[in-house]
Amino acid sequence: MIRVAVVGAAGYIGGELLRLLIGHPEIEVVGAVSSRFPGKRVDGVHPNLRSATDLLFCSADEVGACDAVFLALPHRAAMTQIDQWIQRSEVVIDLTGDFRLDDIDVFRRYYNEEHQVPQLLDAFVPGLPELHRESLRGANLISIPGCMAAAGVLALHPLAARDLIDREQGAQFDARTGSSGSGSTAGPANLHAERSGAMRVFAPTGHRHEAEIARHLGLPAAMTATGVEAVRGVQTICHATLRPGVDKQAVRRAFREQYAEEPFVRVVAHQRGIFRYPDPKILLGSNYCDVGYALDEGTGRLTTIAALDNLVKGGAGNALQCLNIRMGRPETLGLTFPGLHPL
Amino acid sequence: MIRVAVVGAAGYIGGELLRLLIGHPEIEVVGAVSSRFPGKRVDGVHPNLRSATDLLFCSADEVGACDAVFLALPHRAAMTQIDQWIQRSEVVIDLTGDFRLDDIDVFRRYYNEEHQVPQLLDAFVPGLPELHRESLRGANLISIPGCMAAAGVLALHPLAARDLIDREQGAQFDARTGSSGSGSTAGPANLHAERSGAMRVFAPTGHRHEAEIARHLGLPAAMTATGVEAVRGVQTICHATLRPGVDKQAVRRAFREQYAEEPFVRVVAHQRGIFRYPDPKILLGSNYCDVGYALDEGTGRLTTIAALDNLVKGGAGNALQCLNIRMGRPETLGLTFPGLHPL
Amino acid sequence: MIRVAVVGAAGYIGGELLRLLIGHPEIEVVGAVSSRFPGKRVDGVHPNLRSATDLLFCSADEVGACDAVFLALPHRAAMTQIDQWIQRSEVVIDLTGDFRLDDIDVFRRYYNEEHQVPQLLDAFVPGLPELHRESLRGANLISIPGCMAAAGVLALHPLAARDLIDREQGAQFDARTGSSGSGSTAGPANLHAERSGAMRVFAPTGHRHEAEIARHLGLPAAMTATGVEAVRGVQTICHATLRPGVDKQAVRRAFREQYAEEPFVRVVAHQRGIFRYPDPKILLGSNYCDVGYALDEGTGRLTTIAALDNLVKGGAGNALQCLNIRMGRPETLGLTFPGLHPL
Amino acid sequence: MIRVAVVGAAGYIGGELLRLLIGHPEIEVVGAVSSRFPGKRVDGVHPNLRSATDLLFCSADEVGACDAVFLALPHRAAMTQIDQWIQRSEVVIDLTGDFRLDDIDVFRRYYNEEHQVPQLLDAFVPGLPELHRESLRGANLISIPGCMAAAGVLALHPLAARDLIDREQGAQFDARTGSSGSGSTAGPANLHAERSGAMRVFAPTGHRHEAEIARHLGLPAAMTATGVEAVRGVQTICHATLRPGVDKQAVRRAFREQYAEEPFVRVVAHQRGIFRYPDPKILLGSNYCDVGYALDEGTGRLTTIAALDNLVKGGAGNALQCLNIRMGRPETLGLTFPGLHPL
Repeated sequence: MIRVAVVGAAGYIGGELLRLLIGHPEIEVVGAVSSRFPGKRVDGVHPNLRSATDLLFCSADEVGACDAVFLALPHRAAMTQIDQWIQRSEVVIDLTGDFRLDDIDVFRRYYNEEHQVPQLLDAFVPGLPELHRESLRGANLISIPGCMAAAGVLALHPLAARDLIDREQGAQFDARTGSSGSGSTAGPANLHAERSGAMRVFAPTGHRHEAEIARHLGLPAAMTATGVEAVRGVQTICHATLRPGVDKQAVRRAFREQYAEEPFVRVVAHQRGIFRYPDPKILLGSNYCDVGYALDEGTGRLTTIAALDNLVKGGAGNALQCLNIRMGRPETLGLTFPGLHPL
Repeated sequence: MIRVAVVGAAGYIGGELLRLLIGHPEIEVVGAVSSRFPGKRVDGVHPNLRSATDLLFCSADEVGACDAVFLALPHRAAMTQIDQWIQRSEVVIDLTGDFRLDDIDVFRRYYNEEHQVPQLLDAFVPGLPELHRESLRGANLISIPGCMAAAGVLALHPLAARDLIDREQGAQFDARTGSSGSGSTAGPANLHAERSGAMRVFAPTGHRHEAEIARHLGLPAAMTATGVEAVRGVQTICHATLRPGVDKQAVRRAFREQYAEEPFVRVVAHQRGIFRYPDPKILLGSNYCDVGYALDEGTGRLTTIAALDNLVKGGAGNALQCLNIRMGRPETLGLTFPGLHPL
Repeated sequence: MIRVAVVGAAGYIGGELLRLLIGHPEIEVVGAVSSRFPGKRVDGVHPNLRSATDLLFCSADEVGACDAVFLALPHRAAMTQIDQWIQRSEVVIDLTGDFRLDDIDVFRRYYNEEHQVPQLLDAFVPGLPELHRESLRGANLISIPGCMAAAGVLALHPLAARDLIDREQGAQFDARTGSSGSGSTAGPANLHAERSGAMRVFAPTGHRHEAEIARHLGLPAAMTATGVEAVRGVQTICHATLRPGVDKQAVRRAFREQYAEEPFVRVVAHQRGIFRYPDPKILLGSNYCDVGYALDEGTGRLTTIAALDNLVKGGAGNALQCLNIRMGRPETLGLTFPGLHPL
Repeated sequence: MIRVAVVGAAGYIGGELLRLLIGHPEIEVVGAVSSRFPGKRVDGVHPNLRSATDLLFCSADEVGACDAVFLALPHRAAMTQIDQWIQRSEVVIDLTGDFRLDDIDVFRRYYNEEHQVPQLLDAFVPGLPELHRESLRGANLISIPGCMAAAGVLALHPLAARDLIDREQGAQFDARTGSSGSGSTAGPANLHAERSGAMRVFAPTGHRHEAEIARHLGLPAAMTATGVEAVRGVQTICHATLRPGVDKQAVRRAFREQYAEEPFVRVVAHQRGIFRYPDPKILLGSNYCDVGYALDEGTGRLTTIAALDNLVKGGAGNALQCLNIRMGRPETLGLTFPGLHPL
């Protein structure tokens, strides 16, 4: 059994990690750390786990040596605590934004502060199995990408990796997200009466996930982030221009080749059907990222689309996929829930 | 392996059956019958099953002998087809309304037509493990209750079975349901723009599930059915009056005793917390029925509450639970998905 | 012009009052009191009023003599402040729960505290034009009923007033409400991710509006309150039993007679159609309360239904209707918005 | 009184026209044409108009001479019927797509068919008061733009008109829309269970509104259209690059100058607040189009945002605004409803 602790276990990502870990046949949860609720029942905060677990939250001090630790903390907290967790755990998987960028200047620009442990930035392997699977097999420090970044990267990676995109024009990303992405702390902005039915552009420019996308694609990226009516779910639309001479066949081939063997990426670009392009509606609870594309052949303008559940493939599920890889387990272990339809 | 066919496999209940059966370790799906889509891919209709199955829909004729057949048909169609399925399958589990009532007069009143095979009514065991588990072990004909009926029955059964309710005043049920309960056939009433955000009383009196509730509880029951904004989910509120002398302790004891060993019924009646009473929001995709209660001690008026996912515990999941029981398998096999929070 | 102040103008009821008052041709808003935002622009808090007003919030001290004051405060605050507003304004219209009950013992039981100005309870006229129009013409103190109470009372008043209901069995009310009813203060319970898609029984018994219903109908009333997915909108279902000999004709006649001349109550009980019973979906923003009914003639069980917008007919709109009556203006002045469909 | 007929009065745009026209002090509705429901009550189809009108639908033949006719028909029907309406009415305002493009080749490409009355294309004045107010004063044929097109044009017009945009890179539009935009005809795609909670890319490229945007802005435009969870509401995000040397001041000045006097366009680009950028949530029922912008000063990438209610400023309201202009009435007459918050 792999002995695992979750730090920040009372948040939404923490709860999703617990759901997945408890259902995983080769994992034992040895700690569910919450600074707010030590000693309280986990299912008091995560009511879907009633009758699935009798686990109690604990304080950080109570966690002993373990095989892996997930940090599902607010941004900045991972930087602060990283040392203590490295000492206690062979593998540390960080789900915050603290170690997602490898360039200290880019970090400063997007996070508007100095990094506290810049020397560690290079040590983290990005938790993107589709781009870094081999490195993940030996990684002890893993940084899970942001939910909108993961979608954005997977939406364009096949083309960027093959240099099929006009680099000068870059790529414009339009990300839509449900409300769970902003966490479980109540405030005026996520009051139901305010957030319900909204189409809220909360980051027209400069969102932090934009920097991740640019990093992983190696392209100039501009991203707009909008909250739409949903609790879970991210969809990222990407606008780009193909390099001259690149045709639809090449695009199709790139996506097929890239993702043919991927257990959790499906190419969804059908001629017809309600779900002919990626839609998070059918992915909730699942670890899939669906990607699709359409080409305006007259102009060479390309639209690619990716969808995922921000708490699963955009967070907890992706992190578990990385752990499975790191621990030599089947990559899909504990991650086979297919999603619900209709929902 | 248990060889199973689903008839009406392109509907919402049919899709949910397929999702559960495909994930069940001891079941093989030998037929997914759809009269509309024979030869088409199952995942073309149920997009959540992409990459989970390559199954094609087939016609009824193509299904050979099997161990169990699920009839997920429109009402009336089960009556018509029942003979052919009894011949081909040892066990027939009907999810329509055709065999839910055992009294031919009550059937006529609520369904407004004559029953075509009244001689079969007594042969069906109600698919309510919580009330009929022992009978289900040997049942070859099983009739799964309606989604709102299942919730209503489970909400009051512990008290009705112990004769704690004032029979004269009967019980008033207020059922709320999502839109998936009305099936996958489009029409003006379930157009998104019309149905979204509705609180639509579609059956102020006389809903068919009312008759089931009365049957199983042995009490006069009046039910109102309202469509609320949700795709999945049923919640039933029950108003009743306790018999003189029955106090809160007796109520608590009745619920505890009745459901202590039930794998899929949880008593949820907490002092505090957002989810202190049953709410389908945390049950979607799961086979749980949560039940709770509250007592106005001044007046002896009792409110009980039940919640479930209409496609799972109110349909496909409950049917699979019955099949597990019938086939001597662990009752929870293939039914352990805990639900998602938040969703 | 009628000079009017709104106290608690930054809340949801306050905002709705401002929207209606600004649009009213014979009213001048002389004060929008907010203890949180004095000096700030009203449209900073109520963004729908951008370009409709340049009004600033003010403190209570800044409000001088006026013709009418609306108290849109948290419960308890009206009791505390009532004296100062009586001194400054000829008419005081209270939208809190503080003066809705006339029996001090009932108040204590439902509000769990002592009333601070019990001597004033009798002086308040209930702000229910349909029951108290004549008294309202001369009323200087008006208490607007709770949103679910207003719906519940209007749903059964025609029958209760004519003594057509079996008093012994009383009436059971099932109220569903959107999230705006719990106000604009953020907390864990109304976080979008938690509240979205919920069917949350927040008061299975003992809700304060229950006491109002019982008061106005003169019948034993038991009410259950559930939050459903909606921002605005209340629907109340009522279960009752007709007295022996009362038939459908009598019920129909009672509703017709009672509400024939009412400008804001419509009897909605059609044979067919998606909106054949009252649904708040088509009432949002309007001052209508739609009421309907259905009878199970076999059993004499009656279901009545009422729907309204909790912020309008369940609050601000009803309060303005009362003011129009009190000031001798046409009752519908400033209240003619018909609602939107679809929405 | 202006005598007006609505053709296609039973659809969603038709219903919204009727709501606005009935509330307009200087308009008389002399015909509500519906081929499906002649002789039926208007409020049977548009339940929000109960008690607002006793109007019956009529057939086209029953409409005599009138001052203005609104064609709220399915695409293609306006082309077919235009002649008969020109003969009967001084002014014809078309809300279909039939006369939105002035280039016959572009029409053929986007609509995939031949235009039936190409000679009329030039005679139609685009129903965009913000761009064509003067022409509208004398126009007898007016073509109301598509809802997403209207938002897209207004979002970028101030910059395009001043030549501040890099023309070579063009502009990428990301449009999100509620379900009412696809009309009141039921089908599998807009079944509530399928459409609810969706993020459905229904036109990744080639949507017809794209052609309108390109026409009115005089820029290469690529648009993606996505259905999100909403009944009403359109939001369009625009990505563009400023020409070298154009700074934030110039952008701000362009928006301010352009829209300072516009009665129904508000520039919404605040530093803080939940509604600091345009969000249709607060615009439902109103005729406003809110527009905003943000600039990434490092890269010169610009994001502009527009929001409106697709049935009002994106349809019926805009059409009435055009009629007010054409008839020399105050432009805002009958269009002053401010929207609701929260909703």
